[in-house]
Amino acid sequence: MTEQINIALLGSKFMGRAHSNAWAKVGRNAEELATFASQWGWANASIDWREVVSDPEIGLVDIGTPNNVHAEQAIAALEAGKHVACEKPLAGTLADAEAMAAAAAAATGQTFVWYNYRRVPAVALAHQLVRSGAIGRIYHARACYLQSWGGPDTPLLWRFQGDIAGSGAHGDLNAHIIDAVRFVTGEEITTVEGAIEHTFIEERELLDEGAGGEIAGSGAATAGAKGQSTVDDAVMFLARLSGGGIASFEASRLATGYHNANRFEIHGELGALRFDFERMNELGFYDASGDGQTAGWTTIDVTRGGDGHPYADAWWPDSHGLGYEHAFVNQAADILTMVGGGAPVVPMPDFADALKTQKVLHAAIESARHRSPITI
Amino acid sequence: MTEQINIALLGSKFMGRAHSNAWAKVGRNAEELATFASQWGWANASIDWREVVSDPEIGLVDIGTPNNVHAEQAIAALEAGKHVACEKPLAGTLADAEAMAAAAAAATGQTFVWYNYRRVPAVALAHQLVRSGAIGRIYHARACYLQSWGGPDTPLLWRFQGDIAGSGAHGDLNAHIIDAVRFVTGEEITTVEGAIEHTFIEERELLDEGAGGEIAGSGAATAGAKGQSTVDDAVMFLARLSGGGIASFEASRLATGYHNANRFEIHGELGALRFDFERMNELGFYDASGDGQTAGWTTIDVTRGGDGHPYADAWWPDSHGLGYEHAFVNQAADILTMVGGGAPVVPMPDFADALKTQKVLHAAIESARHRSPITI
Amino acid sequence: MTEQINIALLGSKFMGRAHSNAWAKVGRNAEELATFASQWGWANASIDWREVVSDPEIGLVDIGTPNNVHAEQAIAALEAGKHVACEKPLAGTLADAEAMAAAAAAATGQTFVWYNYRRVPAVALAHQLVRSGAIGRIYHARACYLQSWGGPDTPLLWRFQGDIAGSGAHGDLNAHIIDAVRFVTGEEITTVEGAIEHTFIEERELLDEGAGGEIAGSGAATAGAKGQSTVDDAVMFLARLSGGGIASFEASRLATGYHNANRFEIHGELGALRFDFERMNELGFYDASGDGQTAGWTTIDVTRGGDGHPYADAWWPDSHGLGYEHAFVNQAADILTMVGGGAPVVPMPDFADALKTQKVLHAAIESARHRSPITI
Amino acid sequence: MTEQINIALLGSKFMGRAHSNAWAKVGRNAEELATFASQWGWANASIDWREVVSDPEIGLVDIGTPNNVHAEQAIAALEAGKHVACEKPLAGTLADAEAMAAAAAAATGQTFVWYNYRRVPAVALAHQLVRSGAIGRIYHARACYLQSWGGPDTPLLWRFQGDIAGSGAHGDLNAHIIDAVRFVTGEEITTVEGAIEHTFIEERELLDEGAGGEIAGSGAATAGAKGQSTVDDAVMFLARLSGGGIASFEASRLATGYHNANRFEIHGELGALRFDFERMNELGFYDASGDGQTAGWTTIDVTRGGDGHPYADAWWPDSHGLGYEHAFVNQAADILTMVGGGAPVVPMPDFADALKTQKVLHAAIESARHRSPITI
Repeated sequence: MTEQINIALLGSKFMGRAHSNAWAKVGRNAEELATFASQWGWANASIDWREVVSDPEIGLVDIGTPNNVHAEQAIAALEAGKHVACEKPLAGTLADAEAMAAAAAAATGQTFVWYNYRRVPAVALAHQLVRSGAIGRIYHARACYLQSWGGPDTPLLWRFQGDIAGSGAHGDLNAHIIDAVRFVTGEEITTVEGAIEHTFIEERELLDEGAGGEIAGSGAATAGAKGQSTVDDAVMFLARLSGGGIASFEASRLATGYHNANRFEIHGELGALRFDFERMNELGFYDASGDGQTAGWTTIDVTRGGDGHPYADAWWPDSHGLGYEHAFVNQAADILTMVGGGAPVVPMPDFADALKTQKVLHAAIESARHRSPITI
Repeated sequence: MTEQINIALLGSKFMGRAHSNAWAKVGRNAEELATFASQWGWANASIDWREVVSDPEIGLVDIGTPNNVHAEQAIAALEAGKHVACEKPLAGTLADAEAMAAAAAAATGQTFVWYNYRRVPAVALAHQLVRSGAIGRIYHARACYLQSWGGPDTPLLWRFQGDIAGSGAHGDLNAHIIDAVRFVTGEEITTVEGAIEHTFIEERELLDEGAGGEIAGSGAATAGAKGQSTVDDAVMFLARLSGGGIASFEASRLATGYHNANRFEIHGELGALRFDFERMNELGFYDASGDGQTAGWTTIDVTRGGDGHPYADAWWPDSHGLGYEHAFVNQAADILTMVGGGAPVVPMPDFADALKTQKVLHAAIESARHRSPITI
Repeated sequence: MTEQINIALLGSKFMGRAHSNAWAKVGRNAEELATFASQWGWANASIDWREVVSDPEIGLVDIGTPNNVHAEQAIAALEAGKHVACEKPLAGTLADAEAMAAAAAAATGQTFVWYNYRRVPAVALAHQLVRSGAIGRIYHARACYLQSWGGPDTPLLWRFQGDIAGSGAHGDLNAHIIDAVRFVTGEEITTVEGAIEHTFIEERELLDEGAGGEIAGSGAATAGAKGQSTVDDAVMFLARLSGGGIASFEASRLATGYHNANRFEIHGELGALRFDFERMNELGFYDASGDGQTAGWTTIDVTRGGDGHPYADAWWPDSHGLGYEHAFVNQAADILTMVGGGAPVVPMPDFADALKTQKVLHAAIESARHRSPITI
Repeated sequence: MTEQINIALLGSKFMGRAHSNAWAKVGRNAEELATFASQWGWANASIDWREVVSDPEIGLVDIGTPNNVHAEQAIAALEAGKHVACEKPLAGTLADAEAMAAAAAAATGQTFVWYNYRRVPAVALAHQLVRSGAIGRIYHARACYLQSWGGPDTPLLWRFQGDIAGSGAHGDLNAHIIDAVRFVTGEEITTVEGAIEHTFIEERELLDEGAGGEIAGSGAATAGAKGQSTVDDAVMFLARLSGGGIASFEASRLATGYHNANRFEIHGELGALRFDFERMNELGFYDASGDGQTAGWTTIDVTRGGDGHPYADAWWPDSHGLGYEHAFVNQAADILTMVGGGAPVVPMPDFADALKTQKVLHAAIESARHRSPITI
């Protein structure tokens, strides 16, 4: 980067930390580091975000706040001529997402959505392999995002409050795997054929005023008092893909044994791919077009820049594993490249693209509630 | 076995071989071996089955024929006072299955259905662990049976002909995993909430007259001529369990990369279980009730009779792996035990039990065709 | 088999059962079944083996007795003009093994040694891949056979008595992996460069008179009384291969957590192979000569006859897993083929071949005891 | 850290980058960040290291230079009263290492050695579990560090030059696993019983003057001209542990298929542990003291701070995987804690401790060259 861009970060919890780390690492060698450091301090100081998004010093506004305020903040920033990077899902409601995409279409700034798993090297490689024709016509996609921190002992965090979070596992987790299937297959989801939305734990202990914990265990519950969980604990749905294939999706916070199992399996006429974030440095590939005698699932160690693996060159020598945060840094780097007029390593979702994922999220819930298929 | 029972086997293809092997091994040390050997030779000779099922020498009729003749044969045998063991699914249609269950209820003979995977030691152990309370209240069941031999080069075998097979992957594969989820959880499936039935390859090459291959590659196709495939290649559905949990099922013959991936994952409040037949001697168990510091998925080698693993004692010293056929032998042994008045190692499905699985199969197809939920 | 051959089986414990099962299955469709059945009954009756090996009705003598009687029985049988199949290791001592190989060289009968793991399909495929040049010049072989039944609670079975067993883990387990490395690489072991022979548990409880348990837990120990274990619990050694590579071997009965981990890894200039009997239906293959971007360890499901996997055609449709016993049946089939003048699927070890393995076993112990390298 | 410490970094290649990243991340929120940034710029400017180590502004000297200059730099820094952190192995020769340990004993500064894998969370947890008695008396340790970048196409980098590197795979890789076995078991290696040191590729292409690549592929070779490799490509050795157990070690740069397989297996009377850096966020644990029916290898996801996993709290929410660099950051944090008078999370190797590892490295080479056991 020869040009400097000042970045304002809105939000300071889990995603705030993840984004901060990403901006810091991608800019480590550059002048903007000092600038960023002061912005970060400032963001933490909770100054009114309306001043920030109209501050002429700021070039890009990064939104890591709860889903229900994305639209207001993003639209204000776009109207102020800023570039906007927004945490996923694009919004808590379809109406908000549509307004954001409309604002983006009318704005001069670029938009980016933090579907960061696209930049996990294994997922980026899966995208490249499908695009290269390695698996041919797609028959099946099977995606799950399974966690287990939502047991009965977890109190009523904001993530269980529908008015703030928009939804539960669905917007938090299905959003990622819908985006992943769209990104990897290059196809759109055309109908939801059936869905289940389910809340296993209907009441949870209330948190003390102000505790506001981020995740399980981080907030002390007020003894005894309970409140209603107003989000799903799990959502599953079946769908059709634009290329003629069929797909299933499942998100849960009660999949005991899995902590962060963001995974997909995609089967095509010529081969298949599979990924599990719990082993994020590996991509499974089955080449059905070669010699049957040695055919099988190949576990690709995707950290080998010398072998052409996306993003690996930016990090350590081959086969020194990467972690969760590196996808964020990869995305921060691609965003800065795009702001400078360059092309990202793999396609970046903008608001228009993220609106398509939002429509699938919406259709799945409609399908579950009306117990009927929904065409998107 | 102190008593001798003569067994007649109907059917001579894949299942005919599997059953023959099972009866032979379970009886190796016993007098009935010689009797069986002659029966087997006789069965291969294709003598009219109606004579067989009324032969006073015969005590048990084992039916391994195509699904569309199960009912006629089984009912005749039951009416002749025989015990009847029937290959799964119970029948090609719900009406046939209901008639069979009714005949069984009225008969003096016992009935048995070859849902043989119940007697894969890992699946039997999963059943025992759930029954012992090891995973508590069940939240999720996720079951797939994935194969890949149904590509466009596979000709129009009988398994692709709806009038003979009843269905495609659905009756062949979903039948197994519906039974497995019912068996392991001890719960019933109460509604199908949505389903997709799909045929990817609509036309297949016709086989030469009389070729009659059993599976992929085994029959030479007639150059050029094609016929219509009248069964599904894949069926997926979402369901609710009687205990309040939710479940998904998927069967496919086009899941490239998987050859025999009969697998399930079951998540409960206290733990979780997972199984994949491609590693049939292993059961995955997650104990969420113990020390978190050493919690994780434990891969149990289930071939350890000394440690109480079901069926392992009947075979080799601990940790000498078993294969596909041993589940059949285990079932043959349990059937003979039951005919003799004893109890099986784990519950055996009779016609009434298999009718419940058949109802789920039927509901899933109804749900897919009417694009609507179906209560069972 | 159009010709009939009568087989006498000497020995009736673990290996006796494994061999019996093998002969029974391979001959199931053939006339010799009845003959075998009577032989098996006869063998169990413990009639003097000297009569058996000179019985003119007998064509092949199968020796499954303890190591210290192999030589006497095999030589007598060879001198009587029989074919001889002998359990591994060839003998309890190098002198016995040399006498057996000399007798075999002078005899008219063929000899066979039950290094049965050669006929586990994955190991046979590894042999074929190396021979086809798939991994090129060999750099490394790393072989272990790890069990854990030899803890302090296991009593003084015959396998812990040096005068009967010849050695402990070494002859029992290293014998298998020495043979496997020789078989798969096609190279000989030229020197042992260093070795450790170790007995962790020096005293074990005496068994009741006549208890004679085969393995852990199978014999009740006499309270209190202890005897000296006179065999190794573990032996490790380092070696050089005739092609310039280097190798390590390790056998243990105290490798807690592993029950039957017979495994090897072989690294060549163009690729690598790995195998673990605990997942016996899988072979790991790394092809270093292809596209780096999709390079990785491929897990080959070796049960696919349609894809040319050795021995798979004899069993079930593709991808229906095999078990421990099938390697014995495969060997029995190859022995009968060879007796009939045919060729085995993969090379069969005769006494001359097994003597080479015995020399390595001997050199390793010499190296451990003299704390010095030994050239073979 | 309330106190500030200025750090000088010597060395600027792979380890220079790894260390820089570590210091930067551990100090991100603190005042020393700005100080470090200027030091880093300064270190890159290649000013004479003698000035640096005597600069009164500097409190800690971090040495990431080639092995043959560690001693001179470390001793000078210690004599100047600095704390010293040194890359592993401690030195290129035993004499250098002894001089360094002597200097450390006489100095006021603390010493630290970058055996960074101790601070991979899985390895730290293995140490804690052994110390807690989870596996009891140790029978076996089996450690390998397998890479494959040393094929015939790799040119004559400094790592193949004995006068600079001291040794090849041995000092580079065996150093890590010797330290790991000592750290995890808490035992010392008392004798080397046998060893092989081997150079497969004796001549390699010369690099262009000044190319000085760090690893495979990073330097353009001069067409044709070759030079002698003067280091080992692989070293294997067998050893005895102070607690009575036995162990094997193997390091290779020609283990085709493995890129960074730093792994160990440790078997004790009550349980076992296994680790492979290629899946660095997992620790395998076998608990042999519990219920046999559910016994098996448990794969512990070690990134769960809430479950007491070492170092996990410093990073992301549970189960968001860590990468290679985090062990360095963990070590930087522990070093700064210790400089401030605190205790590290798990024991930190100082020069005296690292000298013990160096003695084992030395004994293994002596054993290989003299073809004889060596007592340490």
